[in-house]
Amino acid sequence: MTKTHKNKYTAVNHLTIKKTMTVNELVKAMESVGVLGSKRIAAACNIMESMIKDKDCAVFLGCAGPLVPGGMKNIIIDMIENKLIDVLVTTGATLTHDMAEALGYHHFQGTAKVDDVELNKKKIDRIYDSFMPNEVYEGMEDFFEKNLAVFEKEKMNVKEFIKKIGELLPNKNKSILKAAYENNIPIFCPAIADSGIGLMIWGQIAKGKKINVDAFDDLKDILDIAWDCKKVGVIYIGGGVPKNYIQQAMQLSPKGANYGVQITTDREEFGGSSGAPLREGISWGKMEYKAQNIEVFCDATIALPLLYAALKERL
Amino acid sequence: MTKTHKNKYTAVNHLTIKKTMTVNELVKAMESVGVLGSKRIAAACNIMESMIKDKDCAVFLGCAGPLVPGGMKNIIIDMIENKLIDVLVTTGATLTHDMAEALGYHHFQGTAKVDDVELNKKKIDRIYDSFMPNEVYEGMEDFFEKNLAVFEKEKMNVKEFIKKIGELLPNKNKSILKAAYENNIPIFCPAIADSGIGLMIWGQIAKGKKINVDAFDDLKDILDIAWDCKKVGVIYIGGGVPKNYIQQAMQLSPKGANYGVQITTDREEFGGSSGAPLREGISWGKMEYKAQNIEVFCDATIALPLLYAALKERL
Amino acid sequence: MTKTHKNKYTAVNHLTIKKTMTVNELVKAMESVGVLGSKRIAAACNIMESMIKDKDCAVFLGCAGPLVPGGMKNIIIDMIENKLIDVLVTTGATLTHDMAEALGYHHFQGTAKVDDVELNKKKIDRIYDSFMPNEVYEGMEDFFEKNLAVFEKEKMNVKEFIKKIGELLPNKNKSILKAAYENNIPIFCPAIADSGIGLMIWGQIAKGKKINVDAFDDLKDILDIAWDCKKVGVIYIGGGVPKNYIQQAMQLSPKGANYGVQITTDREEFGGSSGAPLREGISWGKMEYKAQNIEVFCDATIALPLLYAALKERL
Amino acid sequence: MTKTHKNKYTAVNHLTIKKTMTVNELVKAMESVGVLGSKRIAAACNIMESMIKDKDCAVFLGCAGPLVPGGMKNIIIDMIENKLIDVLVTTGATLTHDMAEALGYHHFQGTAKVDDVELNKKKIDRIYDSFMPNEVYEGMEDFFEKNLAVFEKEKMNVKEFIKKIGELLPNKNKSILKAAYENNIPIFCPAIADSGIGLMIWGQIAKGKKINVDAFDDLKDILDIAWDCKKVGVIYIGGGVPKNYIQQAMQLSPKGANYGVQITTDREEFGGSSGAPLREGISWGKMEYKAQNIEVFCDATIALPLLYAALKERL
Repeated sequence: MTKTHKNKYTAVNHLTIKKTMTVNELVKAMESVGVLGSKRIAAACNIMESMIKDKDCAVFLGCAGPLVPGGMKNIIIDMIENKLIDVLVTTGATLTHDMAEALGYHHFQGTAKVDDVELNKKKIDRIYDSFMPNEVYEGMEDFFEKNLAVFEKEKMNVKEFIKKIGELLPNKNKSILKAAYENNIPIFCPAIADSGIGLMIWGQIAKGKKINVDAFDDLKDILDIAWDCKKVGVIYIGGGVPKNYIQQAMQLSPKGANYGVQITTDREEFGGSSGAPLREGISWGKMEYKAQNIEVFCDATIALPLLYAALKERL
Repeated sequence: MTKTHKNKYTAVNHLTIKKTMTVNELVKAMESVGVLGSKRIAAACNIMESMIKDKDCAVFLGCAGPLVPGGMKNIIIDMIENKLIDVLVTTGATLTHDMAEALGYHHFQGTAKVDDVELNKKKIDRIYDSFMPNEVYEGMEDFFEKNLAVFEKEKMNVKEFIKKIGELLPNKNKSILKAAYENNIPIFCPAIADSGIGLMIWGQIAKGKKINVDAFDDLKDILDIAWDCKKVGVIYIGGGVPKNYIQQAMQLSPKGANYGVQITTDREEFGGSSGAPLREGISWGKMEYKAQNIEVFCDATIALPLLYAALKERL
Repeated sequence: MTKTHKNKYTAVNHLTIKKTMTVNELVKAMESVGVLGSKRIAAACNIMESMIKDKDCAVFLGCAGPLVPGGMKNIIIDMIENKLIDVLVTTGATLTHDMAEALGYHHFQGTAKVDDVELNKKKIDRIYDSFMPNEVYEGMEDFFEKNLAVFEKEKMNVKEFIKKIGELLPNKNKSILKAAYENNIPIFCPAIADSGIGLMIWGQIAKGKKINVDAFDDLKDILDIAWDCKKVGVIYIGGGVPKNYIQQAMQLSPKGANYGVQITTDREEFGGSSGAPLREGISWGKMEYKAQNIEVFCDATIALPLLYAALKERL
Repeated sequence: MTKTHKNKYTAVNHLTIKKTMTVNELVKAMESVGVLGSKRIAAACNIMESMIKDKDCAVFLGCAGPLVPGGMKNIIIDMIENKLIDVLVTTGATLTHDMAEALGYHHFQGTAKVDDVELNKKKIDRIYDSFMPNEVYEGMEDFFEKNLAVFEKEKMNVKEFIKKIGELLPNKNKSILKAAYENNIPIFCPAIADSGIGLMIWGQIAKGKKINVDAFDDLKDILDIAWDCKKVGVIYIGGGVPKNYIQQAMQLSPKGANYGVQITTDREEFGGSSGAPLREGISWGKMEYKAQNIEVFCDATIALPLLYAALKERL
């Protein structure tokens, strides 16, 4: 029987695993496999490739979730160092985790099957099955103490505040903050106060130090970027504030995103921004009517390495 | 056979539905039913009752998700007006939706089975199956234009900024912002810039207006409340920044929460804050070792009315 | 501003919780609330009411999941005794749990935070946070030993085999099997071999007993019911085989279901039958083009008592 | 700072993507990455490798979900042809889809954004975003008509019935049924009546044909295999009856599984067998106390190709 249905549908080609495949060979094979999650992976990789190869396209990456304790840091750094993204929006937690590692601390491979009372006595903070020693806060406090003059000097917005941290961090440990600073990629973090960094700044304020960071001022910066570029690609790893902050920049700028990829484990029926499908953004003007877009319903620590390894092979 | 196992386990009592039950009768019946979600509802209701009836306990409510477009607004307002909570932390989206309704606009009962291109042409923004007309932004812009002098006058922090909005909003429509202002319940919103309100302020700044809202300054306010109260109860509707901002106040203050209830559809294995079980907070010092706490894995628009109707019957 | 949008959308009415509400008052209030899960609960209750009050409608109930260890048994029994359903399709596990309780055993309120090695040594089988003592198998074995002659006598199909168990079970403990037998409601269970009951029968076969239960024969019985009724209503608690077995009866019979309610925690994007939306069944002829149908995305042990308490108040 | 915590925890090594990686290189890199889903993929691959390389170990594979419409058929066939598994337990739907393709029909790459009424008029059955033309039933009916004598001849159990289909299917199209027959791998399917195959048999019975397939008889066959092997490895793709049927064979046989891998999108808190963690099986005697086991919380159409490509590279 023909492999093309009379209504012009193409037959599902079953994925055949060869002895040794590169990740890109696997992801390409997922493309014609047919359907469900594997096809979403293939489609997401193609859309990411398109937005990155499109010279006119500015790529906005929104990252939520425990990417640093989860061991995904180097993928974000690699995207920055290879200039694959133009804007990074993330959470205060990710910046805190990244800053801690930049200062020489580590996250540790732990377990969720543990007595949290014991961990508390050992001064270990648990992030599911990753452990962060409480001592990181001492290192962060020292950092801000040492550099206080810089932060007290002038009024700045959140983007500038984050950039300043990146500038002042030591070079010897890889970090998102340092890589973004060196490659002049702006990092936005609207909820910066909701983080260990926020707590450190509170500590200084409590001591009567004057640190003035404006909550609204960097909106103009992300909007300018959205306004000035010819096309936009958005990549959302998880949802939350990082996704929404990029979405609203698209909403207010004259055009929506032309390319969109979202990795999420949330679902649309609960109505939150994190689970909202990208096409919902069309109603808001956040996505172009004919934007290429796909959701991948998967743990980001599985989908992101898979996508990025395939992507890197292609670039 | 005995209904008590030799290992002292109590038998599951099957829930029996009577002809006409009050919500509290149903929730109480769920308690001895045994297990799974229904027992979590019963436990959550008991813990909420305990924290609210505990004179020494300050109750921190964190709200994420589309509560206003979802029709849950009056429950939050009722909790405020009855002084059941002492602190509210929420998202910029919720404050924007609430402000729009305070200004006389409505959210509408729509559908997710719709062409978003058509909605965009009709200037309707979709929130899953709830519709928000774009015109709300005009009303919000007018509000800030009209009251600009107030906001330009002084430097303020986010909590003060939100309180000022509540003060200036008209009285004729019920709103969370107004109720919180009138009942002197502080509202915190670290990611306020990530919202329609943020976009309105950007609009003013773009016109050269000076609005100085500090990103970090109100950390001292939420920490003072956490520090000064004898005991703490936390209620998390969804996760995101509202949950995390309360969690970190508990982390830094000398004691953790004594009571905790979380309604979530997320799961712990993905490692994000939204899905983290409350007991994980013990390692961080966010929860007391012996804190009463429970997670309810349920759409908040189902669990919250059920819990609150039972609670209201008890109080 | 008008509460009706120029495009004729109705405004969201916020749910207001009164001092003492009956469950039906709460569920009715959810209806005009607007959107998301609460509206799905209201819609599901209306559709269940419609199918039950429709004299021409045969109601097929498919039950998966741990309803007996979860304490939901009496709701199913009450639906049977009140003749609200015409057909029950369930899992072997549910029939096993129900049979155990019919024989006087209990499920116990346990916990998931437990050492399964210890439970194994105590001969306790864990079903998440419900415990089943291993001794139930002894009681079941005695039952089949004692009644073996009945089961050896004749060749029967699965439906007849289950009915026979219901007939032979003692009267003193309420059970689904006994209630279905007494009210002449057929119970189908295609995967009966996949259960404790199956293991007991294997034990008899291993001893050389002849028990002939036909795997396909009762398809004619469920199809006859689907064929003979004027209209069909389907209620799916969870998915799995119970849902699919009813779905395929609708597929083969001349008409699809006119009413459909599904309570599920699964999602459509993974492509399984359990998460498939009811409307997908239209393509198969399992649902009528204009069937009233809704999915409720919720733990059944929360949604079912809520729906049934409201329903019972209405009937 | 040392990369080993004083409490002996190992630091998280961030996954570094190289220019061209084989799938196995990626999965191996996931191992030391640390935590969350990526580490579960690495652990699952190691456990699968161990059970397959363990000469004393019989591997039981349970498959639920739309693997054939999803394009995963060849992975299962490859596992069979390479003798990586000893037992396959699956659903009637998978056998029906596989039989249809064996008879020369195809599943087609469709979309979920479609009018199911239109599909119904086109005689196309939708499985999320995969399409199955209704005509497959004609081909299946012809198959059973043609081979009726074989099926009428003798009384058989479900395993034998399935094996007979595999024997009689044409050779020209690859299929799970044919591969299993040729490689003498038994296929169990307790809910065979719940499938298109079941409907075809009903059609014959309706015409007065005598087809006697016993519902319980093949329990002895799966139990014999569980009983006779030295060690057991279990792999569950999804849950449902396939998982549970293997689990109960482990429960009744003297030993539990020594190795276990489960790919699921379900969660334990709802209490169903599909979401139950493997360790829960320890209480039942389904898993050995010290069994190596891991859950992967992921869409099987993403995790399975990733795991199998890495595994194939290793073998």
